[in-house]
Amino acid sequence: MGFMKATLIYGSGDVRVETVPDPKLHEPTDAVVRVLRSCVCGSDLWPYGAKPAQDHGDRIGHEFLGVVEEAGSEVSGLKAGDVVVAPFVWADNTCDFCREGLQTSCRHGGQWGVSGVDGGQGEAVRVPQADGTLVTLPVGEDSALLPSLLTLSDVFPTGHHCAVTAGVGPHTTVTVIGDGAVGLSAVLAAKRLGAERIVLMGRHTDRTDLGREFGATDVVSERGAEGVERVRDLTAGDGTHTVLECVGLVDAVETAFGVVRDGGTVSRVGAPQYAEVPMDFGVFMRNITLTGGVAPARAYIDELLPDILEGRVEPGRVFDRTVGLDQVPEGYRAMADRTALKVLIRP
Amino acid sequence: MGFMKATLIYGSGDVRVETVPDPKLHEPTDAVVRVLRSCVCGSDLWPYGAKPAQDHGDRIGHEFLGVVEEAGSEVSGLKAGDVVVAPFVWADNTCDFCREGLQTSCRHGGQWGVSGVDGGQGEAVRVPQADGTLVTLPVGEDSALLPSLLTLSDVFPTGHHCAVTAGVGPHTTVTVIGDGAVGLSAVLAAKRLGAERIVLMGRHTDRTDLGREFGATDVVSERGAEGVERVRDLTAGDGTHTVLECVGLVDAVETAFGVVRDGGTVSRVGAPQYAEVPMDFGVFMRNITLTGGVAPARAYIDELLPDILEGRVEPGRVFDRTVGLDQVPEGYRAMADRTALKVLIRP
Repeated sequence: MGFMKATLIYGSGDVRVETVPDPKLHEPTDAVVRVLRSCVCGSDLWPYGAKPAQDHGDRIGHEFLGVVEEAGSEVSGLKAGDVVVAPFVWADNTCDFCREGLQTSCRHGGQWGVSGVDGGQGEAVRVPQADGTLVTLPVGEDSALLPSLLTLSDVFPTGHHCAVTAGVGPHTTVTVIGDGAVGLSAVLAAKRLGAERIVLMGRHTDRTDLGREFGATDVVSERGAEGVERVRDLTAGDGTHTVLECVGLVDAVETAFGVVRDGGTVSRVGAPQYAEVPMDFGVFMRNITLTGGVAPARAYIDELLPDILEGRVEPGRVFDRTVGLDQVPEGYRAMADRTALKVLIRP
Repeated sequence: MGFMKATLIYGSGDVRVETVPDPKLHEPTDAVVRVLRSCVCGSDLWPYGAKPAQDHGDRIGHEFLGVVEEAGSEVSGLKAGDVVVAPFVWADNTCDFCREGLQTSCRHGGQWGVSGVDGGQGEAVRVPQADGTLVTLPVGEDSALLPSLLTLSDVFPTGHHCAVTAGVGPHTTVTVIGDGAVGLSAVLAAKRLGAERIVLMGRHTDRTDLGREFGATDVVSERGAEGVERVRDLTAGDGTHTVLECVGLVDAVETAFGVVRDGGTVSRVGAPQYAEVPMDFGVFMRNITLTGGVAPARAYIDELLPDILEGRVEPGRVFDRTVGLDQVPEGYRAMADRTALKVLIRP
C-alpha cells in the first residue's frame, strides 16, 4: 500500500497536510483520480472559522480536476488517462432527481470529505459513482485552461445556478451581492445570460475591478441601508429584477430584499450562516420570491464547458494565488485574511 | 347629501354597522358603485382579532361586486348600470407594474378602507382609478352566479396566484395547507391547472369535504410533524412538487418546508402573521423556493371569468352563510368562531 499527501482539518484555524493511504477502489462504480488541480472554497472558510477542535483530522476539499488512474469494473464511460472534472457533490446522474437536474439531491450521491469519502485537497481521490460524477475534458494535463475548467467544479456553476434560478435573461437587471469568487462568477454568469445591467455590491477594489471585466456595469461599495439606497438610486428607486445573494449572511439577505424590485426574485447561493430570513408582511406585499440553494454543478457543466474551451469566458481568473499541497494551510490563511481571492492548489 | 350604511371596525371584536355619508366622485377617474354583494375575508379576521381599540371606526371590507351608479368625466370604459367586480386592491392597470401583471404594486393604486378610500362592506363605494380597477361582468343584478363572481375579488384569484407562482401544472403534485376559503380556492385552482394529485391539509371535515369536491385527491387532518409524516407517506417519502400555504402562520410555513419535495416550491398567500421564516442550511441544501405574496387579482380576472360564466368552476361554494348589512357583526363572529367558512353580505 502506497501513501500520499492530503489536507485534513482539525478545527478552527487548524488545517494540516498529512500522509494518508493511497485511495483504492471500494465499489465497482468507483474510480481513482490523480489530482491535477484543486482549490480552496469560500465555504471551506466556515469550518476553518468555526469548527470545534478535535483530535482527528477530517478530509476536506470538494473541487478538483485530475486524471483517471483506475476505474472499477462497472464504470463504462471513463478510462485511465482521461482528464476529468468533479462537481462538488458526487451523484449517480441517473436517478429521478439527477434526471431533473438536481444532482445535489441524488438518491445515491453525497458530499466529499464525509463518511469515508475523500476530500479533494490531496494528491488523489476515490470517486464514488464515477460514471455519474466525472465529466471528461478534451484537454491535456498541461492545458492552460485548467484553472478555468476547475471552476466547473463549483464556483462557475454556482454563480450560474444563482442567475438561472433568479430568472436572469436579456432585459433583466441584476444586483450581485458579494465580491468573492462566487459573486464574481455570478456576474460572469449573468452577463453570459444576457443581463442588461449588473450592479455588483462589494468593497474590495481589486475584486470589483475583476467584476467589471466580467460584466458588472456598476459597482456599489456601500453596505446595509446605505448600499440599498445607492442601488435604488441607480434604478430610479425601484431596485433590480433579480438579486444574486453570494455571501450567506442574513445581512446580505436583508440587503437583497432591500434592492429587489417588486415582483422580483432573490436567489441565494451563499451557504447560509443563518437559520431564518426576514420574509414579513412587507416582503409579502411586494411579491418577492426567494430561491436558489446548493448548486447542482453537474447539471450545468455540459452547457458551460464549450464557452471555456472556446475562450468566450475565463472564470479561472478568480484564482489569484497558486500553492503546492504543503502550502495549503497558508492558502487557507490568505483566503481567511482576504489577502487572496481564491487559492489554486497544484499537488 | 344622502346617507347609507357601512361597516366600521373600532378594534378587536368590535365591528359596527353605522350610517355614513353617501360616496361621491372626488376625482374624474372615480366611479361610485352600489354594492350588490360583499363578504368577509379571512384577512379581516386579523384586525378583528388583534386591532387595538380606538374611538373612531375605520371602514373595512375589500371584496365587492355591484352596479356602477356614476362615473367620473375621465372614466371611459364604464357606464351607469354596468355590473362590475372590484379586485381587492385598486389600480390604474396602465403603469409598468400593472402591465407586468403586478397590480398590487401599481404606482397609482392602493387598498380599500384606508386613507379616505371606502371599504367594501357597505351599501356603496367610491372606486378610485375606476377604469383600471373595475371589470364589467356580462350578467344581470339578479344572476345566480353573483357569489362565484364575487370570489373574483379575492379568494379565487388568490388561490390561483398561489398555484401559478408555485408552478402548478399537469404532472405536478400539490399540497394545500389550510382549509379556509383561500385554501379551498387553491385546491380548485390547482385542479383547474391540471395538477395530478392534490393533498389538502385541514381538519374541518365539512370544509375538506368541499375540498374533495373541488379536486383534492387526499385529505390529511393531522398537523405539525405528524401531518408532515402523513404527506410524506402518501408520496413515497419525497413530498410534493409544490406546496400552497394558505394560512399565514409560521407553523404552516414550517409544515410547507416539511412536505415539499427537494427542488420544489412553496407559495404563500396567507397574509403573514410572522416576521421571519425558517430557511436554514437544510432548506438551502434541498433547493426549496419560497414564492407567492399578495395576489394581483386584477391580473387574473379575465382568465378566470369565462370558467365561472360557463359553469366549469363554482368557487362561490365557499360561501356557507349569507347576512344582511345589519348582521355583519354576527358574520364576523361566525367566521372567527369557525362556525362559518365564509360569509356573504347582501346589503
